[in-house]
Amino acid sequence: MMETKQGTSLYLIVKEKLLQLIKSGMYKIGDQMPTESELCKEYDVSRTTIRQALQQLELEGHIRRIQGKGTFIAKPKISESLTLNILTFVEQMKNLGVSSQSKVLELILIPADCTLAETLNIEEKDPVIKLVRLRNADSEPLQYVTSYLPWRVAPGLISDDITGSLFTLLSTKYEVKIHRSVESIEPILIDELVSGFLEVPVGSPSFSLESMTYNDKDQPIEYSLSIVRGDRFKFTMERFLNE
Amino acid sequence: MMETKQGTSLYLIVKEKLLQLIKSGMYKIGDQMPTESELCKEYDVSRTTIRQALQQLELEGHIRRIQGKGTFIAKPKISESLTLNILTFVEQMKNLGVSSQSKVLELILIPADCTLAETLNIEEKDPVIKLVRLRNADSEPLQYVTSYLPWRVAPGLISDDITGSLFTLLSTKYEVKIHRSVESIEPILIDELVSGFLEVPVGSPSFSLESMTYNDKDQPIEYSLSIVRGDRFKFTMERFLNE
Repeated sequence: MMETKQGTSLYLIVKEKLLQLIKSGMYKIGDQMPTESELCKEYDVSRTTIRQALQQLELEGHIRRIQGKGTFIAKPKISESLTLNILTFVEQMKNLGVSSQSKVLELILIPADCTLAETLNIEEKDPVIKLVRLRNADSEPLQYVTSYLPWRVAPGLISDDITGSLFTLLSTKYEVKIHRSVESIEPILIDELVSGFLEVPVGSPSFSLESMTYNDKDQPIEYSLSIVRGDRFKFTMERFLNE
Repeated sequence: MMETKQGTSLYLIVKEKLLQLIKSGMYKIGDQMPTESELCKEYDVSRTTIRQALQQLELEGHIRRIQGKGTFIAKPKISESLTLNILTFVEQMKNLGVSSQSKVLELILIPADCTLAETLNIEEKDPVIKLVRLRNADSEPLQYVTSYLPWRVAPGLISDDITGSLFTLLSTKYEVKIHRSVESIEPILIDELVSGFLEVPVGSPSFSLESMTYNDKDQPIEYSLSIVRGDRFKFTMERFLNE
């Protein structure tokens, strides 16, 4: 689908050409790419142009550069289907045939500030559980998730093992009746804190996924903010035309 | 929801504090923000730190810096609900009470290369309509959309007026029975070509929305790639737990 667009920088043209080779399967997953010098010769452009093209491809997750080893074609993105059903991360990964677990980075009780109190429909200073997790699939870090729950929703959570699904734990141990969640998706740049955890360069384009979950009485039970790796995830959906 | 995270850079802390003021409504839409010097004094940090914080806020679409005038709180993002129904851009904007139209940047016939032929299920060299549009709402450019349609789907399209909805035109004039579309959403960085059209800085985080639309006989009728401004759009959805 590549044509030379007027006014497009050279590196974008080279990037599109390389991307087409990846998408067409000419380069296969795990294949090593030609060196920068080889690419310079092949496309008859400067090394700067090749570097910019490769940098774009890396930021978008199509290739992985490994220090001292070379440049390799990355695995395709995990495709998460935006169905109307709440699926836990564990269930989603299981559907893809991938084993998953969470690493708890922080699990503390904090007093609600005014924003949290309003969000969770509680009083200011009420105790809130703050839980920060790194979600892994096949040992690869994929999502950095910060959750806030009113303490009374799950009073013992602070000493629970939350390496599996939080929602499963809430429904089985605490008899929380999870009913619905309202989610919003925005594109963001990876900052330096999250960069270290998700093992992607600072400035990589990613998703920020905000979620409010309610029980069957429409009381807020969890507010969460997930940073989802854009180089490893895409969201898909199927829509129909109402006649 | 702001706490000082260990290992977080100072500018991210300042950015979060300013963001909280915006979200809480302390700063209102269109309000002018304090100057860099005033912010330096208020947060007792260097001008570099304030600049980095403001840059992040601008890239994420929370503020707008206008040359020679100052920094202003941006309008909130347009929230597009990911329903199961196909809604045209015109319908979506109408639901939000906003008038919209498209500006046609390119409308040409091209021969299908091998990727396009495979995507649209036609033969190589078959004629394809390439249509590039800039979608505006209230005179603001919001989406840069490149569409490819097999020529036989709408032979006269090349000389049609496509400033309104393409799908409406296809169903009314060409009797195309639009049935379903498969869409995928990825986060990307705005490149310099699109930056000029969408009037956002190069490198801003945005959505790339790929869409394949089929008719009632499941034949491909349009492949499109939309660059959607991340500073003006977010996607939302409501999900339910299956009991």
